[in-house]
Amino acid sequence: MTAPLSRLFDPRSIAIVGASAAPEKPGFQMVRAFENFPGRVYPVNPRGGNIAGLKVYPSLSDIPEPVDLIAMVVPPQASAGVLREAAACGAGAAFMVSGGFSETGGDGHRRQAEILDICRKGGIRLLGPNTSGFMRPGRNLSCTFLPAAAEIKAGNIGIVAQSGGINLTAAFLAHERGLGISLSVGIGNGADVGVSEAIAYLADDPETDAIAVHLEGIANGRRLFETIRTTAPRKPVIVLPVGKADLGGFAESHTGNLMGAYELTCAALRQAGAVVVETTDALIDGAHALSNGRLPPLETPGIGVLTGQAGPGLLITDKLRQAGIAIPEIGPETVERIRELLPPLTYIANPVDTGRPLESFDTVCDTLASDPAIDAMLVYALHEEDSVDFAAAVGNAAGKHGKPTVFATQGRNSDINPLMRKLEKRGVTAVRSPDRAAAAVRALAEDARARWAAQRAERSGAPTTVPGLPARLDEASAKDVLDALGIPTPARVVCRTRDAAAKAFSEAVKPVVVKILDTEIAHKTEAGGVHVGVKTRRDLDRALDAIDAIPTGRRKKRYLIEETAADGVELIVGARNDPSWGPVVLVGLGGTAAEAYGDVSMRLAPLGRDAALDMISDLRAGALLDGYRGAPAADREAIADLIVRLGEFVMRAPGLREVDLNPVRAYPDGLCVLDALFLR
Amino acid sequence: MTAPLSRLFDPRSIAIVGASAAPEKPGFQMVRAFENFPGRVYPVNPRGGNIAGLKVYPSLSDIPEPVDLIAMVVPPQASAGVLREAAACGAGAAFMVSGGFSETGGDGHRRQAEILDICRKGGIRLLGPNTSGFMRPGRNLSCTFLPAAAEIKAGNIGIVAQSGGINLTAAFLAHERGLGISLSVGIGNGADVGVSEAIAYLADDPETDAIAVHLEGIANGRRLFETIRTTAPRKPVIVLPVGKADLGGFAESHTGNLMGAYELTCAALRQAGAVVVETTDALIDGAHALSNGRLPPLETPGIGVLTGQAGPGLLITDKLRQAGIAIPEIGPETVERIRELLPPLTYIANPVDTGRPLESFDTVCDTLASDPAIDAMLVYALHEEDSVDFAAAVGNAAGKHGKPTVFATQGRNSDINPLMRKLEKRGVTAVRSPDRAAAAVRALAEDARARWAAQRAERSGAPTTVPGLPARLDEASAKDVLDALGIPTPARVVCRTRDAAAKAFSEAVKPVVVKILDTEIAHKTEAGGVHVGVKTRRDLDRALDAIDAIPTGRRKKRYLIEETAADGVELIVGARNDPSWGPVVLVGLGGTAAEAYGDVSMRLAPLGRDAALDMISDLRAGALLDGYRGAPAADREAIADLIVRLGEFVMRAPGLREVDLNPVRAYPDGLCVLDALFLR
Repeated sequence: MTAPLSRLFDPRSIAIVGASAAPEKPGFQMVRAFENFPGRVYPVNPRGGNIAGLKVYPSLSDIPEPVDLIAMVVPPQASAGVLREAAACGAGAAFMVSGGFSETGGDGHRRQAEILDICRKGGIRLLGPNTSGFMRPGRNLSCTFLPAAAEIKAGNIGIVAQSGGINLTAAFLAHERGLGISLSVGIGNGADVGVSEAIAYLADDPETDAIAVHLEGIANGRRLFETIRTTAPRKPVIVLPVGKADLGGFAESHTGNLMGAYELTCAALRQAGAVVVETTDALIDGAHALSNGRLPPLETPGIGVLTGQAGPGLLITDKLRQAGIAIPEIGPETVERIRELLPPLTYIANPVDTGRPLESFDTVCDTLASDPAIDAMLVYALHEEDSVDFAAAVGNAAGKHGKPTVFATQGRNSDINPLMRKLEKRGVTAVRSPDRAAAAVRALAEDARARWAAQRAERSGAPTTVPGLPARLDEASAKDVLDALGIPTPARVVCRTRDAAAKAFSEAVKPVVVKILDTEIAHKTEAGGVHVGVKTRRDLDRALDAIDAIPTGRRKKRYLIEETAADGVELIVGARNDPSWGPVVLVGLGGTAAEAYGDVSMRLAPLGRDAALDMISDLRAGALLDGYRGAPAADREAIADLIVRLGEFVMRAPGLREVDLNPVRAYPDGLCVLDALFLR
Repeated sequence: MTAPLSRLFDPRSIAIVGASAAPEKPGFQMVRAFENFPGRVYPVNPRGGNIAGLKVYPSLSDIPEPVDLIAMVVPPQASAGVLREAAACGAGAAFMVSGGFSETGGDGHRRQAEILDICRKGGIRLLGPNTSGFMRPGRNLSCTFLPAAAEIKAGNIGIVAQSGGINLTAAFLAHERGLGISLSVGIGNGADVGVSEAIAYLADDPETDAIAVHLEGIANGRRLFETIRTTAPRKPVIVLPVGKADLGGFAESHTGNLMGAYELTCAALRQAGAVVVETTDALIDGAHALSNGRLPPLETPGIGVLTGQAGPGLLITDKLRQAGIAIPEIGPETVERIRELLPPLTYIANPVDTGRPLESFDTVCDTLASDPAIDAMLVYALHEEDSVDFAAAVGNAAGKHGKPTVFATQGRNSDINPLMRKLEKRGVTAVRSPDRAAAAVRALAEDARARWAAQRAERSGAPTTVPGLPARLDEASAKDVLDALGIPTPARVVCRTRDAAAKAFSEAVKPVVVKILDTEIAHKTEAGGVHVGVKTRRDLDRALDAIDAIPTGRRKKRYLIEETAADGVELIVGARNDPSWGPVVLVGLGGTAAEAYGDVSMRLAPLGRDAALDMISDLRAGALLDGYRGAPAADREAIADLIVRLGEFVMRAPGLREVDLNPVRAYPDGLCVLDALFLR
């Protein structure tokens, strides 16, 4: 029977195997790390004696109770033996600082599989190996080799870091900002307890209000997606994925090559409802704001910006606009009321610039926050002695209107530190730079938008019947699948002889396209197997001659005679069964746009029509779909429908690895898939 | 005679006009602001008496000496009178907090012109109006309405902020990090003393080692460019321009529309040798690192990354790679020496991961820093008590090898604050987050690269003779100018009659292009005035008929018969005489790339061939020039040559406003300009 995870994160008793009396050893530091822990602590060392005033037990079996958590400070080779003994004694969980497992490759994999097997059979939950451990300040529990971690305070931010080093770094960054932690955990190799399970634990943890996550590489992306999808409606999840500079792995199709690992991760995280950030500082500033309260799900959250100085106000406005965050117009009554409060030369709109904070700052703040277009507030003001009481002005407005508020200031430390603490007590997020304030508000807005998108991401528009994957995968059979899915393709005939080709040609609307059909030739154009604009019998013969000249070994030559599709906006639509994330769909603009600029959008399948429409809107050069420079517009609904159907298909065709529909031509009304490549 | 700027920034005597005895008034706070100033302070108020223990003078003329600096705390309407009196008394400089001048438009412009005129005639240097003033902590001078600013310490970072609010915010951000300021100044409206002049002052100020600049909008960009160009070789300049989210203004040509104000500003600043950042935090972190020492000019500065924990090391590596910063391979001897120092499972390359800091950390740090591929170091390690002495390990290596070093750590405040101070004393930049460390190193690397680029940006390849601007600007005359500049254009004939067109057609290589020639029609294609692929006489007649149908009022119809250029990679090359920055050149990829993705590169003219080649390399989709997917490559040298020549031309053709060469077709060997639009 597997022990509950609470025996790991909320233990009542802890044994330290490898405890040492030598102060320079990690085995001593680990014992010291528990000196404030109110539960029972059992140092274990064959030599016995005392360490830091605690009785040392010669072995785990000498301890008078089944211990909840075993902290292991032993070399990798010794770990299997310790875990076997722990299992025999009924231990609930173990955590292993030591490296030398799967992160080293080779023999390390075998060693990790061995300890995992022992834990699974013995019902032990395992954190690590190769981790810094975890901090649970609310329990006076600092389960890590770093004694300084005991300084971290209890609070409502949960941290799940794939790396032990980031676990400690992020927790200290929060501490530096005066923030408290509910649980901060380093996953390390994640042999047993992984990132997803730790997030799920925090989702149910009543002390946690916001979850900050650090990711390096995702072994089971689909599980993480589902965990965040069910967590985000209850608690905000903010994620820092590392690896933006990595190149995507090589793949056979265009779609595969366009799905960069980092971009796919970001798309999947956002789709699940997470806020994605790029720095540890933004991770903590975002978690900070979200731990003070989040917005309701909103498509376009409106931010009220109030500033005491023009320059920082401009800078904040610039940053929010860059992030696509709305600073909406406020109502004429609001403008009128603020105008009465401010001197004539100040800027009254949104942002509101008071031109130095004045006595009326509190009323202006209250008035702006009361406007129905405003969902959250950002206030910036330098602190002036004997001037405005910002704690009252901002705190009262935030309390009265219940709108999340971020306040940024600068000034004398002895003035602003108590001011910031006062505001934090009233639920206002207080920071010390205009850019960090903007980052905090950005997290609030993106959380609201992600929840809004997740709420309406119900499945819709999927076909009722989905065909299976044909035995032979060539362009014609792939297009037959598309036909069965209700996706338009050109009229075509598969021909096994030149005579059949001639007959098909005579019956087709000219000009036609003549292509080679061969399961082994994925890139037909490069092979000389695609001939467009075939108008006459002579054109046809030339095309067939060229195709006949392509070496195909013992496979018999086949021809595809296809009617020519009308001109339109070209796109690539693709799908992939990703090893980590499972079925994924992709859309990008055709030509060089998708590849040269990486301008593609991805989502995990299945997805509804709204999400598919969002994918199209995500494209940076989406203007090309809307009748760019006099060209006809493209039917976004039809493209979305294609994406939804393709997503449904890859969900139900497990043998499928990659799909390229490239190009897809979109028209003002409908679309046509000109080429299709299915890979298994 | 104009007073030297030192009477403003290094005054020996100060008078406060508008001094007040009422503690809640700015006129009182301003007097208090000078309480530590060792020079002479003269409060001025017609009522006389005493303020804060200082004798009050009824008027400026009652003061027994010509005062260096007049601090004006008076309403805008009173300022002209005060300045006239100041001029009469031989004052050297004045600064005006008050707003109500050009920033309010209308009457404010007139008022500002009036006070500027008084200052110019009276030889007074004026800071403001509408500014927070300046701080000169080394002189115990806090010339601002915010008493808390007196807390800011003296140091070697200079700050020039266009906004008074950012002046104070940035100075406090530096203060919060324990950094000191030489001079921090808010320019405000900049009626007299502007950003450029303040930068030039700091360039000559022996107490300043790095200059941080905040920009909002640039009235005289060319002057700023020249100021930074002459400053950057001596002192690092780091700039935060605001306005990324702003849309560029409307312009008549494509080039004009592609030159977004923000992008042009960034390009010009980098070309001048500045480091450009996007946040106030990065501004201060960058200035921090650069104030501790800069790299020599280098094309590809190599960063050695040493980390005690894998996760933060990965994160730092990712950030530096994203910024295009090299983390070079180290030599085999270096690897071998580090291998001997570290346990077998650690990662030995660059980055070097020690897998928790060990006793050998100092030797590893020294060894990595000694490698010739390493120009600067970034070290990250969590602080562990009783573990490595980082102050010695990192400080010794930095001192021994003289390579700029950034150290980031986290841990107990009481441990790491003294550690960071110790390292700062040894010239190591110490920060508290991996991302901020990466930002600091990025500033070091970009400074080195900008200086390298500036050094080799000698002019070269310019034509010896440059033609003047023709009286009538149409495509044919524009192309004649290009011919004179040695820039290839298609063979062409200008025809005034259909007969002449027929004759030209008969003598040309077919197919030809037939175009309308009309000075009033800038967009010929949209008007139906461009006909390509004209092979036969019938094609020609149809083309001429279509052109004849275009209404041109009383202007007589003219035709351009032009030979067809071969296919190639299409580009847009443009130029503009920018109202702020002067002559600017631009290059972008053709088709939708430049417009839909804003993928263009800009530089101020004149520029050398190397800088022009850099412009081409700046294009994100530059791969399209190198034989993308089997297409022929484009001749980068020829494109660079075209840019250089066009730059030289706009420098010497002051009547020219905008130039569009669009498309330019580039070939493996050479290029051809297919269409040219000159606007005056």
